[in-house]
Amino acid sequence: MNACDKKYINLTIDLALKAEGSTSPNPIVGAVLVKSNRIIAKGFHRQCGQAHAEIEAINKAGKKAKGADLYVNLEPCSHFGRTGPCTDAIINAGIKRVIIGMKDPNPLTCGKGISILKKNGIKVELCRDSQPFQQLNEIFNKYITKKIPFIAVKAAQSIDGKIATKTYQSKWITGKHSRDYSQCLRKKYDAIMVGVNTILKDNPYLSCRFGDELLLDSPVKIIVDATLKTPANSNIFSGLSPAPVIMATTTRASKKKIQQFNNLDADVIVCPVDKNNAVDLKYLINELAKNEITSILVEGGGKLNGSFFDAKLVDKAYFFIAPKIIGGEHAVLSVAGTGCSKLAKAITLENVKYMRFGEDFLIEGNVKYS
Amino acid sequence: MNACDKKYINLTIDLALKAEGSTSPNPIVGAVLVKSNRIIAKGFHRQCGQAHAEIEAINKAGKKAKGADLYVNLEPCSHFGRTGPCTDAIINAGIKRVIIGMKDPNPLTCGKGISILKKNGIKVELCRDSQPFQQLNEIFNKYITKKIPFIAVKAAQSIDGKIATKTYQSKWITGKHSRDYSQCLRKKYDAIMVGVNTILKDNPYLSCRFGDELLLDSPVKIIVDATLKTPANSNIFSGLSPAPVIMATTTRASKKKIQQFNNLDADVIVCPVDKNNAVDLKYLINELAKNEITSILVEGGGKLNGSFFDAKLVDKAYFFIAPKIIGGEHAVLSVAGTGCSKLAKAITLENVKYMRFGEDFLIEGNVKYS
Repeated sequence: MNACDKKYINLTIDLALKAEGSTSPNPIVGAVLVKSNRIIAKGFHRQCGQAHAEIEAINKAGKKAKGADLYVNLEPCSHFGRTGPCTDAIINAGIKRVIIGMKDPNPLTCGKGISILKKNGIKVELCRDSQPFQQLNEIFNKYITKKIPFIAVKAAQSIDGKIATKTYQSKWITGKHSRDYSQCLRKKYDAIMVGVNTILKDNPYLSCRFGDELLLDSPVKIIVDATLKTPANSNIFSGLSPAPVIMATTTRASKKKIQQFNNLDADVIVCPVDKNNAVDLKYLINELAKNEITSILVEGGGKLNGSFFDAKLVDKAYFFIAPKIIGGEHAVLSVAGTGCSKLAKAITLENVKYMRFGEDFLIEGNVKYS
Repeated sequence: MNACDKKYINLTIDLALKAEGSTSPNPIVGAVLVKSNRIIAKGFHRQCGQAHAEIEAINKAGKKAKGADLYVNLEPCSHFGRTGPCTDAIINAGIKRVIIGMKDPNPLTCGKGISILKKNGIKVELCRDSQPFQQLNEIFNKYITKKIPFIAVKAAQSIDGKIATKTYQSKWITGKHSRDYSQCLRKKYDAIMVGVNTILKDNPYLSCRFGDELLLDSPVKIIVDATLKTPANSNIFSGLSPAPVIMATTTRASKKKIQQFNNLDADVIVCPVDKNNAVDLKYLINELAKNEITSILVEGGGKLNGSFFDAKLVDKAYFFIAPKIIGGEHAVLSVAGTGCSKLAKAITLENVKYMRFGEDFLIEGNVKYS
């Protein structure tokens, strides 16, 4: 793989990212067709049910595709799903060579596309370093291999790890730039999740806005509420935030309450209780996976964040840190729960990125349990 | 002031920093002598009692100083202190022009040096933007104007604001690079201060090391211990860390205990109790100021850090953040105490610097109370 190959395969990442957050439960994919070292067509997968990236590029190129090189960040599919197999289209178009970022992570289909292409005389090259492509589709990879959603925790805190004062004031710790970027993060995920205390204290809309504009395809709102204390007139049920609501509760909730939320068009998932008499999160995320929720952005409070970390269910963490000190032993922590006893068991972040947002700072990384 | 002037006046900052942490209770000062746009001599103040920066430069230049321009970050002194007045030496050397970073912050002498130089026909220019020079001598400026020490709080924490697990494990949250830099920070301050719980849990030496080398001129060690629970065989009294120890206690400590620490050559300061029955920190720092302790690096734990922030006594904060999550509602917080109730009353940091140390991150800034 030469420098030109690297340039074109990296371009597939940029193309794929154009539809980030819009393709669930599918991966994000970009494709580039190159002939005589010139790009003749580009494509990306826009939405589940629409053309795959390779097909979009091949259709754009038409007859010119014959003899071209195809760059694609993910192994082309070889099976009939919502659309026909990409391998057929690649073979029929007369593509000469296919350069692939990473193999299909699905254990049932992994390598099959490559094998079919090779059998049909097409030269196939796989990137040695698949890490950037794995990272690109970390949500899809997790969901397709583990059959549970990819889970990220997001917190907006003071330097000293507080997400609210001891009197529960939290608006706003971080600045406008951080909050705008938080909206972008929401768009990447299928669902946003908060605990009932956040509903009771903050009464958020949990919508996804860009400036004044409300995103119509906003993520599903999930409220973790063991006894259904959420008021029926909460802002999450407001017409100003039309995305579906899922109430995750336990057998401790009354049937009357459950009926009440069903009447509000909320989907109520009744989970077993865990050892703390709270919602069994493992059960819950398995149920959500069955509903094709492939990713969840958990936005706390500290108790819910802590429960997710304690249960070792978190894949990614985003901590927005404002240059402020709230202090106080009774202030609200960004990560409460049980926590670790031994420092060697502390959770570490990998692939850490540090980013400035105005005065604030974002620490983002993949979660590693010891 | 032209570009060359800026270059030379900024050079005085670099020169001054050579003796950072070594000149207490004096400021750090650098001086540059320039003639025909060439540097003819440089000097800096090395230690209290030794030559001032201007004198060092003038002595180095000898007769060449006549007709030269002198750049110095702080207004030259005009009074007899431990050494003679710099204004006399400048006049006698035949300096033509003096460029000054900032006026002497001491209200008793501020502007006097400039006035004397002008009266003797020397052209004097003062930098319009004194901020970098104020920042350079923030310790001296605070001490000389407020008559109390400059106080910095340092914490080494997980992202979620914990300095130890719920079982008090804290070694090590941050990595080697952060810990090495912490040693450099200690050198900048006259004293290091910890609470008795840190002694009981960690038994630190509170020495100042660079690699295996122990700094002979290590900062004074101050232990805040309301009832003198510190064991007499603690490492702070070890020969491996020879700097003086000050025990800050209250009237709650027994005379026998006080005698015991006096026998250990520790200086015991008996303070009144505050409303929490703890050491009255305002009283304490006034007493320390009388002992020419111009700066203190408070290294916690969370209770002591919180008490300093609650009392609005902190001037600067250093938070080393490791990309780890400790979690747990009972873990040890970096800033406990009372904290703020209203978010508008949260402490903010100004002049914020973000620095990488290996995997860790340092957020450093000047503390602003609302």
